[in-house]
Amino acid sequence: MRTIDLNCDMGESFGAWTIGDDEAMLDLVTSANVACGFHAGDPSVMRRTILSAKARGVSVGAHPSFMDLYGFGRRRIAGERSEDLEAQVVYQIAAMQGMAAALSWPMTHVKTHGALGNMAAEDAELAALCVRAIMAVDPDLVFVTLPYSKTMEAAQKAGLRTACEVYADRTYDETGMLTSRQREGAVIHEVERSVDQVLAMVEGGFIPTLGGGRLPVEADTICIHGDTPGAVGTARALRAALAGHGLSFAPFAAPRR
Amino acid sequence: MRTIDLNCDMGESFGAWTIGDDEAMLDLVTSANVACGFHAGDPSVMRRTILSAKARGVSVGAHPSFMDLYGFGRRRIAGERSEDLEAQVVYQIAAMQGMAAALSWPMTHVKTHGALGNMAAEDAELAALCVRAIMAVDPDLVFVTLPYSKTMEAAQKAGLRTACEVYADRTYDETGMLTSRQREGAVIHEVERSVDQVLAMVEGGFIPTLGGGRLPVEADTICIHGDTPGAVGTARALRAALAGHGLSFAPFAAPRR
Amino acid sequence: MRTIDLNCDMGESFGAWTIGDDEAMLDLVTSANVACGFHAGDPSVMRRTILSAKARGVSVGAHPSFMDLYGFGRRRIAGERSEDLEAQVVYQIAAMQGMAAALSWPMTHVKTHGALGNMAAEDAELAALCVRAIMAVDPDLVFVTLPYSKTMEAAQKAGLRTACEVYADRTYDETGMLTSRQREGAVIHEVERSVDQVLAMVEGGFIPTLGGGRLPVEADTICIHGDTPGAVGTARALRAALAGHGLSFAPFAAPRR
Amino acid sequence: MRTIDLNCDMGESFGAWTIGDDEAMLDLVTSANVACGFHAGDPSVMRRTILSAKARGVSVGAHPSFMDLYGFGRRRIAGERSEDLEAQVVYQIAAMQGMAAALSWPMTHVKTHGALGNMAAEDAELAALCVRAIMAVDPDLVFVTLPYSKTMEAAQKAGLRTACEVYADRTYDETGMLTSRQREGAVIHEVERSVDQVLAMVEGGFIPTLGGGRLPVEADTICIHGDTPGAVGTARALRAALAGHGLSFAPFAAPRR
Repeated sequence: MRTIDLNCDMGESFGAWTIGDDEAMLDLVTSANVACGFHAGDPSVMRRTILSAKARGVSVGAHPSFMDLYGFGRRRIAGERSEDLEAQVVYQIAAMQGMAAALSWPMTHVKTHGALGNMAAEDAELAALCVRAIMAVDPDLVFVTLPYSKTMEAAQKAGLRTACEVYADRTYDETGMLTSRQREGAVIHEVERSVDQVLAMVEGGFIPTLGGGRLPVEADTICIHGDTPGAVGTARALRAALAGHGLSFAPFAAPRR
Repeated sequence: MRTIDLNCDMGESFGAWTIGDDEAMLDLVTSANVACGFHAGDPSVMRRTILSAKARGVSVGAHPSFMDLYGFGRRRIAGERSEDLEAQVVYQIAAMQGMAAALSWPMTHVKTHGALGNMAAEDAELAALCVRAIMAVDPDLVFVTLPYSKTMEAAQKAGLRTACEVYADRTYDETGMLTSRQREGAVIHEVERSVDQVLAMVEGGFIPTLGGGRLPVEADTICIHGDTPGAVGTARALRAALAGHGLSFAPFAAPRR
Repeated sequence: MRTIDLNCDMGESFGAWTIGDDEAMLDLVTSANVACGFHAGDPSVMRRTILSAKARGVSVGAHPSFMDLYGFGRRRIAGERSEDLEAQVVYQIAAMQGMAAALSWPMTHVKTHGALGNMAAEDAELAALCVRAIMAVDPDLVFVTLPYSKTMEAAQKAGLRTACEVYADRTYDETGMLTSRQREGAVIHEVERSVDQVLAMVEGGFIPTLGGGRLPVEADTICIHGDTPGAVGTARALRAALAGHGLSFAPFAAPRR
Repeated sequence: MRTIDLNCDMGESFGAWTIGDDEAMLDLVTSANVACGFHAGDPSVMRRTILSAKARGVSVGAHPSFMDLYGFGRRRIAGERSEDLEAQVVYQIAAMQGMAAALSWPMTHVKTHGALGNMAAEDAELAALCVRAIMAVDPDLVFVTLPYSKTMEAAQKAGLRTACEVYADRTYDETGMLTSRQREGAVIHEVERSVDQVLAMVEGGFIPTLGGGRLPVEADTICIHGDTPGAVGTARALRAALAGHGLSFAPFAAPRR
């Protein structure tokens, strides 16, 4: 029976503001990417999220971002000096690692957030910067990255372990990238089609492209969205359907103690 | 020959703003307390400060604060839930520890900043919170605290190693507290008198009080101010004068590698 | 038929985070106190809230706070220089006034938020500071304040128009202050009792105290809470019950154009 | 005798951090562009800067920016929704206008800061957004803009009064843009050459381009830099030299009372 990880971004509440139903999502996923206070999250939210994940055996990782609370890390920021940005990524990973260790639930991975993640996937220099930052803190961390991305290339070149992340609800173009949301057919709305795509990627070993092609892939984790209305219901349905097809679920990496 | 540590708060620049002449102060002190981004400092400033300290063999520590960039951590904030505050202190220490480790210059200590430090010195619960936060991250860290304070008591009770911090330029009252700045005679302006006080504390083993008393003390480190005009000159004069009286200078704790 | 204002704090979302159901509350109240970006709110949220209020003829006012986004303005901050705090209050009122004017829905009032409001109600100096800040921007603004408070006194002394604010769901002690939440009987949970209290204050002209006394009051506005679960339902029930007793609702001040 | 305005960005200190010698610069310039708290400045700094300007008869204006304290407004931020950005610009102008009015020194103008200014100069949509924001607050404000820019075009199209800003220490390319700093000859280091360029622009009515061409210009104000080391000395020398050539100095717009 093939095993796959389900990951979700979490801990994105801040101060008096709540976003997402983290407790419900933690019942469904096997890895949680925890906001580190730069685009969302604060120390209390991080603590609570780590403890809730630990109680369920869900692996936790850092989810670093541009320093952009107002923009939720979704705005592309240019003109940042690369040494500044690298220090910011190191800081966030270090803060999350230390908090997780202090709560006896060592973190396992890093996944970059929002605009930083999108930009790094396309830009070799930025990708290398992220890889350097992760390895500076702990070379045994796993980097969650998209297939056919600059981040995947940079990690492999540097010898950093990766977890290849695929989407259940997004189609892929001929280059292995997610189909742009501007194009028709970018989003998969039916659970059945999502399940078919996941099975192709996880068991078939290929990405079915929008044009009918097949690109080889070794999927390690499926990205589950948690911050949209109805997210929990959709996630629950997908997980049940995948289980019905014989998949079981486990983190791609377990905490080392 | 008796050895003493000289410590200074550093890394308190932020973004485009610079404060203090850290490079000059690092030539004079043996331990640096590095702002962690909550009252001052940012990841780049932290990185630069750690590397500059490392180049001179100066030990580095975390300098956590209330989350208060605008107020520079000097405003007393009430109504913070203690679990939130504890998470904030853990976060800052963890971030600093991870950055220092990533730069191969492991941090040795923690000193609380500004209003947080003042409040913890007076309040047993807050003192215990700080001690718990430090030990959660790393029980081998040294806590820089004032003698006769609640923080000193809390650390000793918990078995956390302390470095007892004394002032060269401030007088003490009968309880061993710094004389309130409201009272006359709170500040020592002459280098000679500062040297006398330091020698009494470091070699004599006692705090001379404003009223003429003597309180036993085992001083480990002398606090040097870096953010006032003329700070570097004053620090240089003090260090030279102390050296002239046979004191030598070394960190109270060296980085473990 | 006696007319009364219903006011509610609003526009407390920030960036990606939403709090409260402002649209629903705007159907129920006659005055909205809009967060100005220091404890909550951002320029977009302010704009949207002003436009939604305007569409319903709901008066808008500034809801200034300590500069404390993380703490939602609920933390008491000490050690702020009064000239700094006064400038902060002026800034917030000015920003709100300018935005409201730009949207052709001039603001009518100011109500201080959270810890700032609580502290000013108790402290004559802080109360005078708030009054000065309001009058510096526009002496024709109305200051929403509690009866028997330092803010009420300061406003009357300075000749600033006030709107006296009472609570439907909180009892009063013998001094005319809200009963401390530490004491039993502080909160009124039944709509019927809330209505009785409001009628006593609005039509009877007195505050019924917890001890059975009566304190004279000229109530101008009733504070409606919007950020708790079930707030909209409670507000709707209260408004309906008050209407059933013959009260009608209108802003204490209408926009001057 | 021809009269010209000298303008300088000011009020860019924040909290405990100081940048620039505003008091010295205010003795040299005739218009001050005051940071509004988004990239720099805080309400106290704004207040102090306005009062210092008023004491010398220096006109003040708003200097709005992206919301980017860490990056000092110098980072290009993409993906901001235009309605959000417009609200941010309105907010800043409104806050500054209200503070200036409260201090009886009404502001006269707006100059966009850093990345926002650079992007708006190149992008017609962003330029129109800035013009709309200014006019929404007060259509009588003057917009300080570069010649041959999208902002100048947008202002003229909308009927917003402009002040055409030229540089003494930067050369121009054939299109009337500042020569890119990547190219040789972008910066003018000699005061004499700066004076020649200013005289050409102010008295000659043309911009001398790097290629030897002449582009017509009606210069209203010369930008003086205040945040670099030696800025005050350079500004003083330039002003003296221009005075020596018969120029006198006055704001392009005086406060309306």
